[in-house]
Amino acid sequence: MNKKQQKSALSESQSKPLSGNVSPESAKRIRGFRKNKFSEKDLLKELLNGNKTALGKGITLIESNQKTHQKQAEYLIEGALPYAHKSIRIGITGVPGVGKSTFIESFGSYLIDQGKRVAVLAVDPSSSVSHGSILGDKTRMEKLVTKPEAFIRPSPSGDSLGGVARKTRESILLCEAAGFDVILIETVGVGQSETTVHSMTDFFLLLKLAGAGDELQGIKRGIVEMADAIVINKADGDNQKAVRDAKLEFNRALQLYPPKESEWKPEVKLCSALYNDGVEDIWKMIKEFKVKVDDNEYFHHNRLEQNKFWLFQTINDYLKSRFYENPKIKDALKEQLKMIEENKTTAFAAAKHLLSLA
Amino acid sequence: MNKKQQKSALSESQSKPLSGNVSPESAKRIRGFRKNKFSEKDLLKELLNGNKTALGKGITLIESNQKTHQKQAEYLIEGALPYAHKSIRIGITGVPGVGKSTFIESFGSYLIDQGKRVAVLAVDPSSSVSHGSILGDKTRMEKLVTKPEAFIRPSPSGDSLGGVARKTRESILLCEAAGFDVILIETVGVGQSETTVHSMTDFFLLLKLAGAGDELQGIKRGIVEMADAIVINKADGDNQKAVRDAKLEFNRALQLYPPKESEWKPEVKLCSALYNDGVEDIWKMIKEFKVKVDDNEYFHHNRLEQNKFWLFQTINDYLKSRFYENPKIKDALKEQLKMIEENKTTAFAAAKHLLSLA
Repeated sequence: MNKKQQKSALSESQSKPLSGNVSPESAKRIRGFRKNKFSEKDLLKELLNGNKTALGKGITLIESNQKTHQKQAEYLIEGALPYAHKSIRIGITGVPGVGKSTFIESFGSYLIDQGKRVAVLAVDPSSSVSHGSILGDKTRMEKLVTKPEAFIRPSPSGDSLGGVARKTRESILLCEAAGFDVILIETVGVGQSETTVHSMTDFFLLLKLAGAGDELQGIKRGIVEMADAIVINKADGDNQKAVRDAKLEFNRALQLYPPKESEWKPEVKLCSALYNDGVEDIWKMIKEFKVKVDDNEYFHHNRLEQNKFWLFQTINDYLKSRFYENPKIKDALKEQLKMIEENKTTAFAAAKHLLSLA
Repeated sequence: MNKKQQKSALSESQSKPLSGNVSPESAKRIRGFRKNKFSEKDLLKELLNGNKTALGKGITLIESNQKTHQKQAEYLIEGALPYAHKSIRIGITGVPGVGKSTFIESFGSYLIDQGKRVAVLAVDPSSSVSHGSILGDKTRMEKLVTKPEAFIRPSPSGDSLGGVARKTRESILLCEAAGFDVILIETVGVGQSETTVHSMTDFFLLLKLAGAGDELQGIKRGIVEMADAIVINKADGDNQKAVRDAKLEFNRALQLYPPKESEWKPEVKLCSALYNDGVEDIWKMIKEFKVKVDDNEYFHHNRLEQNKFWLFQTINDYLKSRFYENPKIKDALKEQLKMIEENKTTAFAAAKHLLSLA
C-alpha cells in the first residue's frame, strides 16, 4: 500500500480514461498496482474494511476504459452491492463563487465531528477540458483533506455527461460499501449536470448568494424546482438586509411549485460556511427529511426510480450511438439531409428510409 | 365532391386512427371516398388547385393508420413538397380560458380581409381522450368557419405526441401546397405540446391574461423563453391598470433572456380579440419579424434545423420503441428490474445485459 495516499483524503485518478494513450505516470502506477499483487479479492476485502487506498484504487478501476480494469471494476461493484445503499447522498450545486468548497469543508468537518464518515465526489462534465476544475484544488478543502474520516475524489473526466454519471454512480456504491455514510456530490451549474446529480442523490441542496440577482436563472432552468433546500451562503457581515430579502423571495418562489412527491417542503436556510455558522441547522433539517422519507417510504421508492431512470438512460444512449455510428447510416444520413435541404423529401420520409438501412 | 364539406371550413377526420377498428361511420365515409374514384393523382391536382375538400381528404389519409391510406398519403406529400414551404407558420398557445379560439377567429378574419388564405390546425395530444378538446367546438369560430378562405381542422388524435406531431407537420405541407399562406397552429399548455408546436412554427405567440398570476408558470416551463411575442388578451373594459402592470412585468421578464438566434426581440402586445382590437398591430409585428428573418436568413435556416430535429426525433423514437417492444427484451427487462430492486445488480450492468440480447 502507498502510505502517502493513505494519508491524504484526496485520491487522484490513476488512469487517464479516454485519453487514448495511458500517460507514463499512470502506467507506472498501474504497474505498481499490479506488482503489489493486490488481487481483486483482496481489494474488495480491504475496501469493505473501509481502507481508503483500496477505495481509491477501486474508483480508478471504474474510471479506466481498459477492458481488464473494467472487468475488475465489475467484480468489485458486484461484491460491494450487498454492503452499499446505507448512506445518505446529498447533491450540492451553485454557481461558481457561491462558496461550494468552503461549504463542503465546513459541513463535512461538522459531520465528522458528529461521528460520520464523509465521502465527497464531484460531477463536472467539463473536467476533461479543464482537468478537474472542481475539487481539483486541494488547498480549497485543506482541513477536510487531512481527516481520516474523509474521502475526497475529483470528478472523473469523460467524453460525455453520461460517462461521468455512470462512473460517479458506481463510485458512490464503492464509497458506501467502504462505510462512508454521508456522500456529498458537488456539481457546477453547467448544462445538464445539475439534473444528473439530482437523479443520483436523495437530497438536493442549492447554494445561493443574497442579492446576486440570479433568482430567475435558477427558476428558469428548473434548478429551484429540484431543490430540497436553498441555502443562502455568506450570510455574514454587512449582508443582513440582502439576506433577509433573499430568504423572503426564495420562500415565495418555493411556494409556487406543486408539492413534492416526497411530501417534503423545501426550506430556505442561512449559512456562513466561512464562520461555520448554520451547518448544524442544515444537518438537522436533512435528518428531519430522512425521517420523513423513511416513514412514507419515499426514500426507498426514489432510489428505485433513479435506478430505473439510469437503466433506460443507458440503453437509450447506446441505441442512438450504435445507430448513428454505423458507417452505412453516416453516409445515408448525409444524403438524406441534403435531400431535405433541397425540399426533395420530408423529415419523416428520410427517417423511414434511414431506419430501413439499419 | 361533398358539397356540405366544401361549404364548411371545419373539416373532420374521416378515419379513426389508432382506434384499432374502424367505426361504421368512418367505414362508410371511406367507402364513399373510394366510390368517388378520386384517384391519388386527381386528389393531388385538386389539392394543388386549392380545393378544400381535396385538402381535407388528404389530411384524412395522413391521419389514417391503414397501410393503403399511408401509401396514398406519401404520394400526396411527395407531390405537394415542391409547392409547399411558402407560408408563415404561427404557433399560438395559452392556458384554457385565455381566449385562443376568439383570438384565432378575430386574427384569422382580419388576415382574410387582407387577402390571405388561412389554415388553422391544432396539436392536442389529449384529444384521443377528450375527442378533440380544442377546435372541436365549431361554434367557437363561427365566423371563420363560414369563410371560403379559411380551412379549420381539429387536432389529429394519436397515441403519442410524436404521432400527433408527425401528422400535423405533414398536414402543414398539404395546406401550404393548397395555397394557404398563413398557417395558425393552436396548442393547449399540456406537457410538451408547446415545445412541439414551437419546433414546427416560424413565429411563436403566447397568449396571456393580465393579473392571472401565472407569470412564473410560463417562465418555469420555458414557454416565455420560446415566445416571439406575448399578447395580453382581453385588454378591454375595467382591466386597464392590470394590463399596464402585466405589460411592464412581461417586458421585464423578456429582457432577462439571452438574445435569440433570430435576432428578433420579443414584444409584448395588447389585444381585445372580442372587439377585434389589436390584431392589426400583431400582424404588423409578424410582418416585421418576417422581413428581419428573411434578411438575416434565419427563416430558412430555422426551417432546416426544424427538419433535422424531426428527422432525429423520429429515428430516436423508433429505435426505442423497436427495442422495448421486442418480446425477448420485455421479459428480460422485468427480470432485470426485479434484480435491481433486490440490489443484485446495478442499472448499468442491467443495461449492458439487456443490450446484449437485442
